[in-house]
Amino acid sequence: MNQPTNPVGGLIRLRVDLAYDGTDFSGWAKQPGLRTVQGEILTALERIFDTDSEDFGLTVAGRTDAGVHAQAQVAHLDLSERQFARLGRHNQPTERLEKLAYRLNSLLPSDVRINELTEAPEGFDARFAATSRRYVYRIADRASVKDPLEARFTLWVNQELDLPKMQQAASLLIGLHDFAAFCKPREFSTTIRTLRFVEVRRVYGRGGVIEVELLADAFCHNMVRSIVGALIAVGDGRAEPEDIRQRLDSASRSGSFKVVSPHGLSLTEIGYPPAKQMAAQVAQAKALRSLEDEEVL
Amino acid sequence: MNQPTNPVGGLIRLRVDLAYDGTDFSGWAKQPGLRTVQGEILTALERIFDTDSEDFGLTVAGRTDAGVHAQAQVAHLDLSERQFARLGRHNQPTERLEKLAYRLNSLLPSDVRINELTEAPEGFDARFAATSRRYVYRIADRASVKDPLEARFTLWVNQELDLPKMQQAASLLIGLHDFAAFCKPREFSTTIRTLRFVEVRRVYGRGGVIEVELLADAFCHNMVRSIVGALIAVGDGRAEPEDIRQRLDSASRSGSFKVVSPHGLSLTEIGYPPAKQMAAQVAQAKALRSLEDEEVL
Repeated sequence: MNQPTNPVGGLIRLRVDLAYDGTDFSGWAKQPGLRTVQGEILTALERIFDTDSEDFGLTVAGRTDAGVHAQAQVAHLDLSERQFARLGRHNQPTERLEKLAYRLNSLLPSDVRINELTEAPEGFDARFAATSRRYVYRIADRASVKDPLEARFTLWVNQELDLPKMQQAASLLIGLHDFAAFCKPREFSTTIRTLRFVEVRRVYGRGGVIEVELLADAFCHNMVRSIVGALIAVGDGRAEPEDIRQRLDSASRSGSFKVVSPHGLSLTEIGYPPAKQMAAQVAQAKALRSLEDEEVL
Repeated sequence: MNQPTNPVGGLIRLRVDLAYDGTDFSGWAKQPGLRTVQGEILTALERIFDTDSEDFGLTVAGRTDAGVHAQAQVAHLDLSERQFARLGRHNQPTERLEKLAYRLNSLLPSDVRINELTEAPEGFDARFAATSRRYVYRIADRASVKDPLEARFTLWVNQELDLPKMQQAASLLIGLHDFAAFCKPREFSTTIRTLRFVEVRRVYGRGGVIEVELLADAFCHNMVRSIVGALIAVGDGRAEPEDIRQRLDSASRSGSFKVVSPHGLSLTEIGYPPAKQMAAQVAQAKALRSLEDEEVL
């Protein structure tokens, strides 16, 4: 591991496992004058390495929108050999990374936290190597306990939602589809995605809150929040499950359902292939999505 | 139930089950110019009943300090027969109370929530009828995942805490003692309390966070946070379990341990006797604590 993982330019690529409360962030992506997760991490890295406006190649798997949370986000960043050496020439690489994680956490505000910093496997790319993203959207309806300690992470609705109907509508969305009706259009972006898993459940241990869990290869912009908006419309009787299917088949955004508030949404998992399939996955994903802007949820 | 529960002055006493995120409150008790839980509820009641500076006899079981949370707080309030009738003469009492809870929640900010509003059993007094208060203090130490989504409710410490030592120290505090060494003194207040239960545990399902759970008949001011401060001192090696016992025996506050931050503390349960023992419990508690100021945690 004293050999750089990514020999190009002598950079050492690190995998960053992190979490954040999205409430007070204008999303992940660095933007001038706004408080963002990427911005906060870069500021901390610049302080540690005594540098200025370097981007450290910091790249995330799920580019979350303003207000969206992440319980298990993954990113990567690249250090030069010199920067890596500065973490302690006489320390083992794992000790250096523990130290760096510790320093980053001391500098970061409490709403973002590095959980682990590890040497990335060969060919790793947080964004392009990812094979799946899992999100959970939480809703407290009339039948739920509306817990103020969970208010930052839960959408409150006044009606009681019809769970079986929502489940029926959700099941119609599973599979490979053009999700244009549920995506904010972006130039050069495809809206074809595979929704592998979707579940609508009431969690009795948590005050009867409704969770909508979705797993896909990737999501296009606003897709999760737009699907959840459609499911809520079904749950409160404004739409029928078949309407959702028709909307999907129309593949057009005209008159689409409401994109619900970001605060109920959390990224809960990023999936990666085994190390030896990493390079192949990256090549494939780059070919498929090289012209696209990254998804923003 | 159209008969007032408490016939004095024709008032109808309601039991209020509520929860709040204490972060942005200056505690429970109404104070001029400050945002408090009691203040917010009174403002909502005044709007509903179109009245001004009435106190509705609003009384709470566990007077929480600024920044302390409540997952299961209990209070009572008194309505006049006229106010109760205004909730709908033709409705059943339970419908009236559901309606009132709904209206209160529409007016209250999202960090406080009425979970249930019920007719109080005869002789009920949220404060004096309570036989126990249960609190949980959450600590993320070096061995825990520090989850930013739980940062508002968890104290973060850098060291790894020695759990068996903390458990040993905690067990020395159980029973009837003069807790003066752990209480902020108040005139006319006794510091003798029965600590019925204390447990220090690492919760592996929640990122290895340490929870300190305490149950007592009642706590004196700052008692929970002062005990937790002492247990942390034991956990990080600044004190030994025997020091805690000595401090307890000294019954003096001189050189006491740090009162930890309120944000890790949540009220999780208020215990009441069966309805037929309610009046006796109230009479006993009033006799014992009539001269005291209420406990504030």
